[in-house]
Amino acid sequence: MTVNNVKRQKYGIRESFIERIQNAIDMGLKTQVKKLVPDLHPADQADLIYNLDHDQRLSLIEILGNKLEAEVLVELDGEVREEIIGYLDKEHLSKALSDLDTDDAVDIIEEMGDDLTNETLDSIKSSRKREAIEESLSYPEDSVGRLMVPKQYAAVPKDWSVNEVIKYIRSNRKLPEDFSEVVVVDEYFRPVSIISVSYILKSAGDKIISQIMEDPEDLKILRADMDQSEAANLFKKYGLKLSPVVDDGGLLIGTISSNEIIEVIDEEAEEDMLLMGNVNEADMHASVFTAAKGRFPWLMTSLATTAVSSFIIGMFSDTIEKVVVLAALMPIIAALAGVGGNQTLTVFVRNLAIGAISSRNVGKTILKEVLMGFFNGLIVATCAGVAVYVWKQDLMLCFVFGVAIVFALTLSGLIATVVPWTVSKLKLDPAITSGAFITTTLDALAFLVFLKMATLFIL
Amino acid sequence: MTVNNVKRQKYGIRESFIERIQNAIDMGLKTQVKKLVPDLHPADQADLIYNLDHDQRLSLIEILGNKLEAEVLVELDGEVREEIIGYLDKEHLSKALSDLDTDDAVDIIEEMGDDLTNETLDSIKSSRKREAIEESLSYPEDSVGRLMVPKQYAAVPKDWSVNEVIKYIRSNRKLPEDFSEVVVVDEYFRPVSIISVSYILKSAGDKIISQIMEDPEDLKILRADMDQSEAANLFKKYGLKLSPVVDDGGLLIGTISSNEIIEVIDEEAEEDMLLMGNVNEADMHASVFTAAKGRFPWLMTSLATTAVSSFIIGMFSDTIEKVVVLAALMPIIAALAGVGGNQTLTVFVRNLAIGAISSRNVGKTILKEVLMGFFNGLIVATCAGVAVYVWKQDLMLCFVFGVAIVFALTLSGLIATVVPWTVSKLKLDPAITSGAFITTTLDALAFLVFLKMATLFIL
Repeated sequence: MTVNNVKRQKYGIRESFIERIQNAIDMGLKTQVKKLVPDLHPADQADLIYNLDHDQRLSLIEILGNKLEAEVLVELDGEVREEIIGYLDKEHLSKALSDLDTDDAVDIIEEMGDDLTNETLDSIKSSRKREAIEESLSYPEDSVGRLMVPKQYAAVPKDWSVNEVIKYIRSNRKLPEDFSEVVVVDEYFRPVSIISVSYILKSAGDKIISQIMEDPEDLKILRADMDQSEAANLFKKYGLKLSPVVDDGGLLIGTISSNEIIEVIDEEAEEDMLLMGNVNEADMHASVFTAAKGRFPWLMTSLATTAVSSFIIGMFSDTIEKVVVLAALMPIIAALAGVGGNQTLTVFVRNLAIGAISSRNVGKTILKEVLMGFFNGLIVATCAGVAVYVWKQDLMLCFVFGVAIVFALTLSGLIATVVPWTVSKLKLDPAITSGAFITTTLDALAFLVFLKMATLFIL
Repeated sequence: MTVNNVKRQKYGIRESFIERIQNAIDMGLKTQVKKLVPDLHPADQADLIYNLDHDQRLSLIEILGNKLEAEVLVELDGEVREEIIGYLDKEHLSKALSDLDTDDAVDIIEEMGDDLTNETLDSIKSSRKREAIEESLSYPEDSVGRLMVPKQYAAVPKDWSVNEVIKYIRSNRKLPEDFSEVVVVDEYFRPVSIISVSYILKSAGDKIISQIMEDPEDLKILRADMDQSEAANLFKKYGLKLSPVVDDGGLLIGTISSNEIIEVIDEEAEEDMLLMGNVNEADMHASVFTAAKGRFPWLMTSLATTAVSSFIIGMFSDTIEKVVVLAALMPIIAALAGVGGNQTLTVFVRNLAIGAISSRNVGKTILKEVLMGFFNGLIVATCAGVAVYVWKQDLMLCFVFGVAIVFALTLSGLIATVVPWTVSKLKLDPAITSGAFITTTLDALAFLVFLKMATLFIL
């Protein structure tokens, strides 16, 4: 394995390679396409498909005989996956789904419409696989039950010896191909602890599992109806490798490993980031029109809420007509309120997401943010006031401007905490409360204070 | 394990429990504190420490005899970790560090000042451990070399039989306690493939490793000087469990598993989110003054850049004096430019982070964003124009306002892609280009177009 080879792998699929396949598709070089594409890693095939336009995608699937490795579907997202599924042979699709691990099959099926879901489920021939998928689908969306690998796990009683366990693993063909930890269960099949395969292998053959398993107090058990993000927080906090999943009665029904959790963490981070940036999840791979359509409501919301600011400014048009410089200073107040509100919101939403904010400490957190807004407001206002004095030599204007800045920043600490906290209490995602609402509310109130004070003191 | 027990574990440390320990500290109940705290999981001890104030932290460490499990330090961040390290007994600290896994010790040492680093390194007694830490520290910050577990890995030649490997694992006491995959190497100790311990265990004893190992084409090798985020992208894309780390010559020097990657993904997501929200990483657990100090430069930047907008508005004060409604409409243009710019920036920065944007497709991406801005601009401008007509019955005002909106949103598609792209080409983090700069540039240009057109057409 040379350094060059390492470099090539570092970047996944090479760009020139994508271009070569695109050309081959455009030129109808079927043999070449049939030879090159299936050799790629499924994740790279997905990359290739993202890079094609609609016509090229259709051609590609046709050249491949309306077939595609099921793993490629797992790697695709939203709109593009739907498009590709539409091109595939129906019989091939249900076969592909039954070949997949249950969690991957569920990932694809849960995004189909209800009709298509039932049709697809019915067409899966292995009744064992179908039941596993149906069980997984019976748990709420974004729950641990949807994520777990049901039924497929290695579990042993705590009173077995190391030799017994090794014999069991070597002889039992139903175990998953690949597992790094074994779940230790009690006589009722309730998880008690876990133990790594390597540790079992390294222990003396006559040791009893309960003597060498991890401390049962450290076991973190997940309930199937628990939210995936809660599970992810547990994995992050305690550095878990594998967690048993139990049903309502506490019985072992599946497992979740850090590999599944990586996907959850990545998806959640993306979701939060996109929400705070006022775009939808589907935006990332969507066509111009779909993406534009998804962004439009946020713009209209902003238009509607900012109209309140316009209305407030409109009320003071006499004042502005006489002191036109007020119009020039308003954007500064709005920008500072925007940055300050965004700072508070970002930290607060992140702390909410990692579970660091509770009813017990929320008051302290809000106070801290308000204080920070106030302190920073005082300093920024002083600097801004001096600058305005240099520009206009009007002390009263500096005073009014400064007070408005302090007000805007202090208020930003209050609104950008109380609003997301309330939203989270309503069981909604606090990341959604971003930009539009908080900023425009802040702007409107800060303009009101600024213009009202200007009317009273400067006119 | 009852359901209640599951629920308790779900939330980690109970809030009432934290309060109980806080009270015990305040009341000087040393025996109780000494009994309760060390029993907690290190992550929970860290949670407890975050929840204490400075005096309580000092008391806690004193009660514990200026000692603390090393794992607790690993769980703490930035300022708080520094504070706690300051309270600890120096000899205890170096012992604690040498007990830690190398990557965890590196994580703590790399955040110390240079003097303290050397002093601490010198005090570590095990020369093997010290050398491992020094090797890790020789790689750049945020590189794979800092993250890997050096020297500690299970590696076997590809021509060994399953029985030989099992015997090696059972007899070799130098192997890590816990490992799920074994690295397969060639005669020069270059990684060739990996294979899971469970799969080895399940295979017939006379099978040769090269027959049963994973397809070498699927192996993703990491170079020690590679960026951690690149490694994380590979793990996410290809669903890796473990990757071998090699030096410049391609020789195996360590491994990285998905557990280390979870931390990277989480940290990177946090970092990006905080940067885009104009706060520093340290903000999350900082005191009011430190956090406020960290946020202040962003506010000042915003003040300085928005001054350009004020200056532009100031140039048109005659126009605004005569058509005061312009002042009321400007915040709408600014808000729309802000939301539009933020939407584009969020998607673009995210796509950059996951490696979906390259020189080959960046032109297409920019065009797409500009088109989206233009289309959405047209529709939003129409709605806004109608509203303004209802309010003021001035067709020319509607026209000027509408054109300014279309201009602002189209431009937002251009600036919020070109700027982060340029920043990323300069090897800086594109997430840093957010808010302040892009929004204020957009505002200033949009105001200029709006007021210039108003001067030409309305006056």
